Amino acid sequence: MKDPWANIFASAIPCRNGKANSGGRVHGVDRWLVRKLLDAIGRPPLRVILWDGEEMAPDDAVPAVAMVISDRATLWRLLTNPLLHFGDDYSAGRIKIEGGLVPFMETVYRAMARTSRFRRKSDPAAYRRNQPNLNSPSESRRNIQYHYDIGNAFYQLWLDTEMLYTCAYFPDPAASLEDAQIAKMDLVCRKLRLKAGQTVVEAGCGWGALARHMARRCGVRVRAYNISGEQIAYARQRARAEGLEGRVEYVEDDYRNITGTYDAFVSVGMLEHVGPDHYREFGGVIDRSLSDEGLGLIHAIGQNIAKPMSPWFLQRIFPGSYPPTLREMMALFEPWEFTVLDVENLRLHYARTCEHWLARFEQNRDRVREMFDECFVRAWRLYLSGCIANFNIGSLQLFQVVFSRPGNNLVPWTRSHLTLPTGEP
Amino acid sequence: MKDPWANIFASAIPCRNGKANSGGRVHGVDRWLVRKLLDAIGRPPLRVILWDGEEMAPDDAVPAVAMVISDRATLWRLLTNPLLHFGDDYSAGRIKIEGGLVPFMETVYRAMARTSRFRRKSDPAAYRRNQPNLNSPSESRRNIQYHYDIGNAFYQLWLDTEMLYTCAYFPDPAASLEDAQIAKMDLVCRKLRLKAGQTVVEAGCGWGALARHMARRCGVRVRAYNISGEQIAYARQRARAEGLEGRVEYVEDDYRNITGTYDAFVSVGMLEHVGPDHYREFGGVIDRSLSDEGLGLIHAIGQNIAKPMSPWFLQRIFPGSYPPTLREMMALFEPWEFTVLDVENLRLHYARTCEHWLARFEQNRDRVREMFDECFVRAWRLYLSGCIANFNIGSLQLFQVVFSRPGNNLVPWTRSHLTLPTGEP
Repeated sequence: MKDPWANIFASAIPCRNGKANSGGRVHGVDRWLVRKLLDAIGRPPLRVILWDGEEMAPDDAVPAVAMVISDRATLWRLLTNPLLHFGDDYSAGRIKIEGGLVPFMETVYRAMARTSRFRRKSDPAAYRRNQPNLNSPSESRRNIQYHYDIGNAFYQLWLDTEMLYTCAYFPDPAASLEDAQIAKMDLVCRKLRLKAGQTVVEAGCGWGALARHMARRCGVRVRAYNISGEQIAYARQRARAEGLEGRVEYVEDDYRNITGTYDAFVSVGMLEHVGPDHYREFGGVIDRSLSDEGLGLIHAIGQNIAKPMSPWFLQRIFPGSYPPTLREMMALFEPWEFTVLDVENLRLHYARTCEHWLARFEQNRDRVREMFDECFVRAWRLYLSGCIANFNIGSLQLFQVVFSRPGNNLVPWTRSHLTLPTGEP
Repeated sequence: MKDPWANIFASAIPCRNGKANSGGRVHGVDRWLVRKLLDAIGRPPLRVILWDGEEMAPDDAVPAVAMVISDRATLWRLLTNPLLHFGDDYSAGRIKIEGGLVPFMETVYRAMARTSRFRRKSDPAAYRRNQPNLNSPSESRRNIQYHYDIGNAFYQLWLDTEMLYTCAYFPDPAASLEDAQIAKMDLVCRKLRLKAGQTVVEAGCGWGALARHMARRCGVRVRAYNISGEQIAYARQRARAEGLEGRVEYVEDDYRNITGTYDAFVSVGMLEHVGPDHYREFGGVIDRSLSDEGLGLIHAIGQNIAKPMSPWFLQRIFPGSYPPTLREMMALFEPWEFTVLDVENLRLHYARTCEHWLARFEQNRDRVREMFDECFVRAWRLYLSGCIANFNIGSLQLFQVVFSRPGNNLVPWTRSHLTLPTGEP
């Protein structure tokens, strides 16, 4: 198993610094620092519990969530770069949370949003901030391997049986994760109006589930691209096992190297790794790949306004990632005059998806600890909890965009096809 | 009846220049000019018939459509500013079209799009080009009165019985215009999830049909704004006649002066008259008008990329108008962190709507000629035909956008409510 911390910012690896130092007695300056910290993040209604058991809270109310800080050095680090050090010190166990990590993060994010409300505006350079790597072909490969090539066995512990690592679609909020991932793939097939005998190209295919589903369910032939070697190996093995060879081809290559022309272009959960600097280039790939009467679908995490990702998330979890605004996404479509036919926002579905993932992850945390270590368990708990919180409070969106060429008059007349069963005509 | 030509560019009024001059014999220079003209617009497959009956065509094929030019001066004007003078000389009868005006315009537009293909890109200042007026409150009033205040009796000749002058929604392409306009209003009600007892504000209400429909069908109370005095008078009279007083209030005022807070914000076909310079301001009006858990809907003509409208259209038909790209529309939402929930493109529905309007217009052209003159009949035929052509070839889009505040978790979970009947819960 590769060390997921090994290749980026090795000097900052948070769990290798040994045990927390004893904090000693709490002084007046410590209390002053806590107040500064709470002020800086908008005075969220939470308790701060210091290393000698002393509690502080910004208001008279007794808040339901609490942050336990284990020593003075952790508190001081939090003040220098809270967005980085909260994650690292939480991962290292030097910060603990009472009352639930998701409610804690929602509380903090809501307070921070209120604080900065007066300066809420898009930052045109948001996608470049805090980035250890951007998204050239070689950087993309490094970024993707960092996250996705840490072991299929790890992801099998908490993803659904088809291994989809993207937002599911819950026709009912109570649907199972397995059913919701099937429903998502069916929804994509319907939006693309796939018909038997058509050809589809997929950019960023993960472990290949959607490609296999489209081939099996709609009778199409699929060529699917991905630069994660471990995912491609898994996808090929499953396609063989399911008798789909010859109908699904997995290509270990960058989306920029897609060749051929297809009846449909689909990309689910890859745009977040493309980077706005490369949207025009990605649009050009779509332009040369899509037939005149073809339909395309881009499914991606997005934002209402352009804000940077946190440095912790970019350095520890998803280097090179960025969830675009709809405005930024238009750089994919405008240079090629693609027509946007349909946008659906599945934000609450992604919160629900991440809740399923986190629950399965927690059920298997002992196995994860054996594979990696406790620091990794805590880091990924924080990542999945942060996703739930961000989708719940609306800091993140999930946009599913269907598009065509401008003069294509064979596009669906209404949305009635979206409620019909998928499959052959 | 006011003279619709009176208030803008009076010196350029096209039909007041008397009869066409005789063209005399066709010379070599005339033929050279025709070839230059055809080259400039991408060599569309059409015949040009000159004043002495001579025919020219860019290719060997015999094209189905022809442009008949009545004299040399018309030909020369066409070359100096084809986008303005084609409309004026068509209106004046100095240019005639054989084989159908819509097929002719589609042929020309397609050829022009091919010609400029290598430089297809958005023009950030597109909305300012060729504009006689932009969209300050006083300019807006002048622009709106120019188009909408030329007589309700005129619009009654070719709109549906409810007087909707916006894109209808055809559940089936063969639906009647009346049914399709009702279906459009029902679709808007469903997208806004209107429930009895809620309040709605409408920006730009036309002759008031949607406001009355929402009040009657969904049991909501509506305040509807419009700066067209003739439309407001008509809307009030119909609300009285239909017993909707007290449930629908029509306010003759600018959208910038909307007051109060509402459960829903709706604007159908007004954004085209707002102008991108004022989108942020319009978004601010929505931000102060929409309740925390409210839904909003903006329905507007749009474009894939930012291109200027033709000077003829802006000077003779719709001064101050501009159909935005989705990117430009985001200026409404981003500064206020609104979440885009749903975008539906109804382009083909607007082509169909305009076909209905044009057919009814032609059935009543003798009445229109009595109200105005032949020049007006030909100008409006050209306008409606141009709309059909532009929607058919994909130069224009119709975007229906639903949005909410970012943290609103009561937004619809799926689209299942869009296929349910409207009305009380």
